Parts: sequence; C-alpha cells; structure tokens
Amino acid sequence: MTKSLTHIDAEGTARMVDVGAKPSTQRTAVAAGQIAMSTAALAAIQAGDAPKGDVLGTARIAGIMAAKRTAELIPMCHPLMLDAVNLDFRFDDRAIHVRATASLTGPTGVEMEAMTAASVALLTIYDMAKALDKGMVIGEVRVVEKTGGKSGHWIAEGYSA
Amino acid sequence: MTKSLTHIDAEGTARMVDVGAKPSTQRTAVAAGQIAMSTAALAAIQAGDAPKGDVLGTARIAGIMAAKRTAELIPMCHPLMLDAVNLDFRFDDRAIHVRATASLTGPTGVEMEAMTAASVALLTIYDMAKALDKGMVIGEVRVVEKTGGKSGHWIAEGYSA
Amino acid sequence: MTKSLTHIDAEGTARMVDVGAKPSTQRTAVAAGQIAMSTAALAAIQAGDAPKGDVLGTARIAGIMAAKRTAELIPMCHPLMLDAVNLDFRFDDRAIHVRATASLTGPTGVEMEAMTAASVALLTIYDMAKALDKGMVIGEVRVVEKTGGKSGHWIAEGYSA
Amino acid sequence: MTKSLTHIDAEGTARMVDVGAKPSTQRTAVAAGQIAMSTAALAAIQAGDAPKGDVLGTARIAGIMAAKRTAELIPMCHPLMLDAVNLDFRFDDRAIHVRATASLTGPTGVEMEAMTAASVALLTIYDMAKALDKGMVIGEVRVVEKTGGKSGHWIAEGYSA
Amino acid sequence: MTKSLTHIDAEGTARMVDVGAKPSTQRTAVAAGQIAMSTAALAAIQAGDAPKGDVLGTARIAGIMAAKRTAELIPMCHPLMLDAVNLDFRFDDRAIHVRATASLTGPTGVEMEAMTAASVALLTIYDMAKALDKGMVIGEVRVVEKTGGKSGHWIAEGYSA
Amino acid sequence: MTKSLTHIDAEGTARMVDVGAKPSTQRTAVAAGQIAMSTAALAAIQAGDAPKGDVLGTARIAGIMAAKRTAELIPMCHPLMLDAVNLDFRFDDRAIHVRATASLTGPTGVEMEAMTAASVALLTIYDMAKALDKGMVIGEVRVVEKTGGKSGHWIAEGYSA
Repeated sequence: MTKSLTHIDAEGTARMVDVGAKPSTQRTAVAAGQIAMSTAALAAIQAGDAPKGDVLGTARIAGIMAAKRTAELIPMCHPLMLDAVNLDFRFDDRAIHVRATASLTGPTGVEMEAMTAASVALLTIYDMAKALDKGMVIGEVRVVEKTGGKSGHWIAEGYSA
Repeated sequence: MTKSLTHIDAEGTARMVDVGAKPSTQRTAVAAGQIAMSTAALAAIQAGDAPKGDVLGTARIAGIMAAKRTAELIPMCHPLMLDAVNLDFRFDDRAIHVRATASLTGPTGVEMEAMTAASVALLTIYDMAKALDKGMVIGEVRVVEKTGGKSGHWIAEGYSA
Repeated sequence: MTKSLTHIDAEGTARMVDVGAKPSTQRTAVAAGQIAMSTAALAAIQAGDAPKGDVLGTARIAGIMAAKRTAELIPMCHPLMLDAVNLDFRFDDRAIHVRATASLTGPTGVEMEAMTAASVALLTIYDMAKALDKGMVIGEVRVVEKTGGKSGHWIAEGYSA
Repeated sequence: MTKSLTHIDAEGTARMVDVGAKPSTQRTAVAAGQIAMSTAALAAIQAGDAPKGDVLGTARIAGIMAAKRTAELIPMCHPLMLDAVNLDFRFDDRAIHVRATASLTGPTGVEMEAMTAASVALLTIYDMAKALDKGMVIGEVRVVEKTGGKSGHWIAEGYSA
Repeated sequence: MTKSLTHIDAEGTARMVDVGAKPSTQRTAVAAGQIAMSTAALAAIQAGDAPKGDVLGTARIAGIMAAKRTAELIPMCHPLMLDAVNLDFRFDDRAIHVRATASLTGPTGVEMEAMTAASVALLTIYDMAKALDKGMVIGEVRVVEKTGGKSGHWIAEGYSA
Repeated sequence: MTKSLTHIDAEGTARMVDVGAKPSTQRTAVAAGQIAMSTAALAAIQAGDAPKGDVLGTARIAGIMAAKRTAELIPMCHPLMLDAVNLDFRFDDRAIHVRATASLTGPTGVEMEAMTAASVALLTIYDMAKALDKGMVIGEVRVVEKTGGKSGHWIAEGYSA
C-alpha cells in the first residue's frame, strides 16, 4: 500500500499539509446526509414549514455559516475562500435528506466544507425537533461528488444526483 | 398530538426558547456515532495511532473544542457553561466508533454539545483519512443517554453503554 | 455632573467594569431600528418573502447568532448567558423595522445584546437587498425598553411598543 | 423591473451567490454613520478622550476587528482577504460621526465590511457611554462611496467626503 | 509524588476536568510578562504613544478581548463568565512590562485568562513594532498572584506588585 | 531615524496597513519559545507523554488552530490564507522548547502566525501542567528565521536551527 495518512508524518505526529506548491484550480464538492425521525416529527416539520419554512430555513443558514468556519473547527483544514456554499433538503417517509454543495478556486479540495455544512444543518434540525422525537439518528453523511483537483470528476459508487 | 416544535411559534417563525424560568440542575448527555471505512484505512489509523495516537488524539481535541462552541454553530442553542466534555473511541472491523459525554449544571440540556462533539470528531477523522478512502460514511450519530432535567435518566432503545 | 464614563478610569484608560459584586437579577432589553429603502426594494422583499420568508428569516437567524457573540465584538462587554433573544420585523411604506428582545438572569444588563441583534439583522437585510437599492440607510437603532437592574422598568421617551 | 434579490432563488430560497466566475479587481467601499447623544455625554467623551483617546480608540479597534469577521456575522457574505480597513471619527454638537473605509483585491465588493466596521464602532461607543445617556440613537449608517467592480466609482447622492 | 497531570487520565489520554462538583467562589489571578526591544523601538512607542496612546491602547483592547476567548484557544479550559479583566503597562529602559488581572466568581481559577490576556497584549505590541526591531523577545510570562479557590492567596516567589 | 511605527499614522492613530499594492510572494516564518518548569513537572509530562503524547499533542493542535485565527486576535493583522503551520517540541533539563513554522503565498509576512502558534502552544502546556508547578515561566518567544518578502532570508542573531 503506497497511500498513507497525509496529516501524519513518519514519526506519527499530526501535520498540516503544505499546500503552497499546489496549483489553484476550480473545485466543487457535494456532501449528502440524512436525519431519520418519527412520522409525527416529520409531519410537524413539514407543517411548521408550510407558512415560513423556518426549520429547514434555519438549518440552511446554519450550514452555510458553518461551512465558512470549517478551518476553525477541523484542526488540519486550511483556511479557504469559498466561492459559494448552498444546501437543499428533501423529505421521504422516514427522514429529511440534505445535500450541500461547496465550491472554490484554490489549491485544495472543498470536501470538508461540504461535509461540515451538511453535518451542522442536520444538527440544527436535530436541535429544533428534539422535543418531538428523542430517537432521531443522523446518518449517511458522506461526499457524493467532486470536481476539480487531480482526481477530476468523481461520483460515489451507487450515488445518483 | 400535544407536542410541538419548541423553536417555532404559532405563526411558524423560528424562536429561541426562553430558559429564564427553568431551574438549574445537574445534567449529562452522551452521544454516539461512527465512521465506516475500508479495512486498509482502519489499519493505517490504528498503526499510525500506535506511537503517538495522533489521528484520534486530534479528533478528540477537535470534538472538545467544538462542544464549547455549540451555541455559535447551532442557531437556537443557548450559551452554556460546560462542566466537562470528553470523548472515547473504539475500533471494530469496519468503523471507528465515538462516544462523547457532556455535563453541566444549568437550565437546559447538553444533548447538542454532546452531538456536536461527536460530529466534529468524526469530521476530523474523515479529514485526516480522506486520502486513503474516498468512500467513508459518517453515521448512527444520536443521543444514547441522558440524565437530569425533567425526563430524568433516559437510555436510547437498544443501547447498552 | 456626577455621572462619568464607566469604562474609562481616572487616567483616561479604557477599563472593563468589574461586575463581581453586582447581584444577579432577571433583566430584559428591547432594541429597535430600521432600514429605509426604495418602494421597489421593499416590494421585492415582501414578494420574495411570501413563499419562504427567507430575507427576514435569514436576518432573524443572523441577529440571534450575533447576540450570542456580543462579548466577542464589543470590547468592554462581559460574556453573558442569554436566556433568550428574539426578533420581529414590520414593514411600512418606506422601511423595514426590527425589534430585538434579549433577556437573561445576571449581574449586568442586556442592552448591548439587543442592540447587536438589531444591528446585525439590519446589516443582513442590507446585504441581501443591496443589488436592488444602493441607497439604503440603517437608522433609529436604539434601546426602547428595559426591565430589571437598579433602574427598574424604563421606556424610551416617545416610544410605544 | 429586471433587478432581483440576488440571494433568493426562483423558489424563494436563500442562496449564497457564486463568485467563482467573477474577476478579481481592486475595490474600496466607504460607510458612514453616527451616534446622537446628549451634550453632556459628548463633552464627557471629548474630555475623557483628551489624555488617552480611549473611547474612540476602543471603538476604532472594535470596528477594524469586526470588519475582519463580517463573513461570520452576515450569513450570505463571502470570506474575503481585506487589504485594509480603517476608521475616522468626527464630533459635531449633537453626534459623533464615523467613516469606515475598507479595501481589497477580489471578486466581490467590500460594502458589508465597511458597514460592519461602522456599525460595530458605533455600538462600542454606545456601550461605553450608556451610563451617561440612555437615549442615544445610532443612525444614518449607509455606504457613501464605492470604487472598483462593474459599477466603477459611485458616490451616494448628496454625500461629500 | 502524589500530584499528577490533571488533564491526563490513567491511560495517558487528554481529559477535560469535570468542575461540576466544585463550589463557586470569588477568584482573581494576575499574570505578568514583558517584551524586550531596542531603545529606538521603545522610544518610538513612547513618543507615538504620547498623543493618542494607540500602541498600548490597542494592546490593552486585544488582551481584554482575548481573555474572553480563552476557552476557544486553550483546549482543556472551561468556558467562564469573567467578572472583569484589565491590563496595565510599564516601561523600563529595555522592555515594556504588562500586568493582566482577571476575576470571576466560579468553580475554577482564572490563571489562563490572565495569562492569555498578557500573551496576546505582548503579541500585539510585537506586531505593531516589528518594523522597527526584528529582534524583540517576549518573556517572563507567568502568574504572579492568585486569590480564591482552595490555595487561597498565593504570590509568586520574588514577586512584589 | 527614518523607520517608524507602521500601524500609527502622523496623528498617532492606530492604522491597519494597506497591503493592496504589495506583490504576493512565498514566505515562511519560524518562531521559537520555551516554558521553564520544575524537574518533577518535566518528568510527569515526559512520562505522561510516553503512551499517548497527549500534553504535547494537545499543545500542537492548539497552536495550529490558533495560528489560523491570528487575525481575529491581533487587531492590526490581515486575514491570511496559510499554506501550512506546524510545531515541534524539544525537552531539555529545565524547559520544554517549541518551534512553530508558518508559510503562505501572500502580500505580507507570517511572523505573527508563527508567534501566535508558539504562544498558544506554550499557554496550553501551562494549562495542562499548572497543577504540578505554579511557578512555570513562558519565555524567549521570538521570531528566529524568515524567508520571502523584501528582506529575504533572515536569521536571528545567535540562533541556530
């Protein structure tokens, strides 16, 4: 195996990777995730959402704001100048699904920004619905698509956008 | 159904709940979660972890620091004075499992602090291992145990600590 | 004049006031403010606001989140544990009006948290509407009502809630 | 009307504008504002200000530091690398006037950074003088001048620097 | 030796100490430190300081603001509600000396808040004077006095206030 | 003397230097520092460090994370996009020594990021060892080496890496 942990040096010490020599390219990353909850909780959010959209609206804002602070939260992440980050939500009969897209022109990928946006949006839904359902579970949070950088266009196995 | 979304008022507008009249009690919350990855990635983290513990060590610090900033990330969360927050990790043959425990003496629960600690710790592992495995998935992030507050001692169905 | 600048000592040096000896009491503060804009910009926000409420919804979240960070922004403010902060908006034919209410149980007032919430909510509206009207003006930002602390219930001259 | 709310999409959902395709140019923005207060409060600040400059000095630092954190406070603002931000103050017989100038080389304007600097500087003055005058009012906060970007040099109607 | 590292458990893992059972008492801590520099740099700061006090004034604000964010910077520090933090400066013929005093009523000491205030104030002086003297050295940063908590009044050996 | 305080203008007012006209170049800075402590405290850290490396591991993470937030802490610092920041530690018989290296491609130097990383790492060690030794002293914090920018390669007098 030639691959290795990029943030750990030969002595096992945590390292921030030096991106100074990497070229600046246009990159995007899409992360997805979901929060499973009871039918009653889903119905309340959909109903509460009808007039003002405030549960998902609040989660969207929280996700966007968190993406901009990714480098403050994740120790080895580089500060980045995001071009954009946006989130969409979708209901099915057992969960709310989030999809977060982040983009930038820079020397390093934006997976962590998309993953952070999705995670914090899901945590925000959890917070706003926890009085309705104590058993909610956040899951399936992963990168589903990437463009730019040396690996080019990549789509997660079994994922269709 | 008498339960309702506590952060949404009668007009569907997002609201921060007023905790001014709630008594201050001793509370704890435990959140659990996992990150599934390839056998090779798991082995590299365990090996890289042997001499210095830096992947999980970094994730632990990131989780503790994020818990202290929960109210900055989650819009409707109250600022809290955490008494403590700590994280433990466990490997099985397909995932790393995290367990985050938060405690405080205050008028409101600490579920969100525990959930934020677990989520950011898992995101940190993702960041440090993503060069090894693009297909990692974060999941099963949920509150598994709570003490204090009006619901007393609560354990998630099917969970054993 | 017996009153003096509480944050400046006898030598003219900026000081953080020591609140250690002040008793903890229940306090609220209400701040108001407005952003004047063209009829077309107002109409676009009201229309854009119809289905999802997102301009004012975003401004509300921004105001709540900023209130929690008041002590990070205003150098001499004490860190506080807000019980709640909420915002309401109202349109008239030349401006959007905001009203922010903050409350806590603590040794010092919450005027600055209410003022910060109102100011950042208005800045957020400015940001989201600036492509429509370059000439918007934020104004009349002030404390309009206070309860608790040694001055008791106070209402700004000429203000009716 | 062909103009529309740039941060709201066709479905009324809040969006962060993608600036990835916008060219990087040299830009400046100037924001102005004021805080009206009693003659006694103005006199105390001017006098207290004589030896050490600490009220306005503190407000200046607070404004500069807040400008650097604009993207953390205003949900749809992009993170920017400010080249500079500076503030000047001026007294007249009923108010203190602030003027904040921000500049950067980048794909998007710096109005919000200048507006945030001015607003937080005025909030800081409010905080430091509120023991002297409960009736202070912050107002006339607006962008008065811009250079760079596609609109070129723009000066607010009726404004002279 | 019965003393041990309070933040490291029996297995060598970093831990945040649980302060939930500790009583809340009135506490203060004083930290001192210095920045040594050339005579020319010292003279420039003193001269530049005459009219407006801006080098030391800026360092004072930076120190106060940093103290309020100690728990964000130092991983194992608890969030605290500081009652006050203030800084004083003194020149001698080879250095500027800082003295930072922090106080709170709470379950844990404020040494780290005082130490952080002193350190960031010295870093700010370094930043503002580095064009004059590349060889400045920050040193002698330590706690010199503490009151409250179980050790009562403590003064560092050889220190006189 | 032709040199002057770059952050103070002719009137003695604090200013953020405008870096808009400065070319972007590759730059590095190395800061060093130490924390002196008792033999017993040194031994405990080394022993506690054997299995998991958590005292120095925590200090390293804290230093890296603080470096990314330098512009939030030091009022006149520009926001920068660090390419990397890393820290190394070394024991001698009376102190732990830290060496922090920061690099970026940009218009201004990274001394302050390296100095902030070193200072916060030392503060973190202080926090984690203060129960063992109340008399620890942080000192000799300074820039020891710089490359890039108009002064080229510079090494502090008497320093050997």
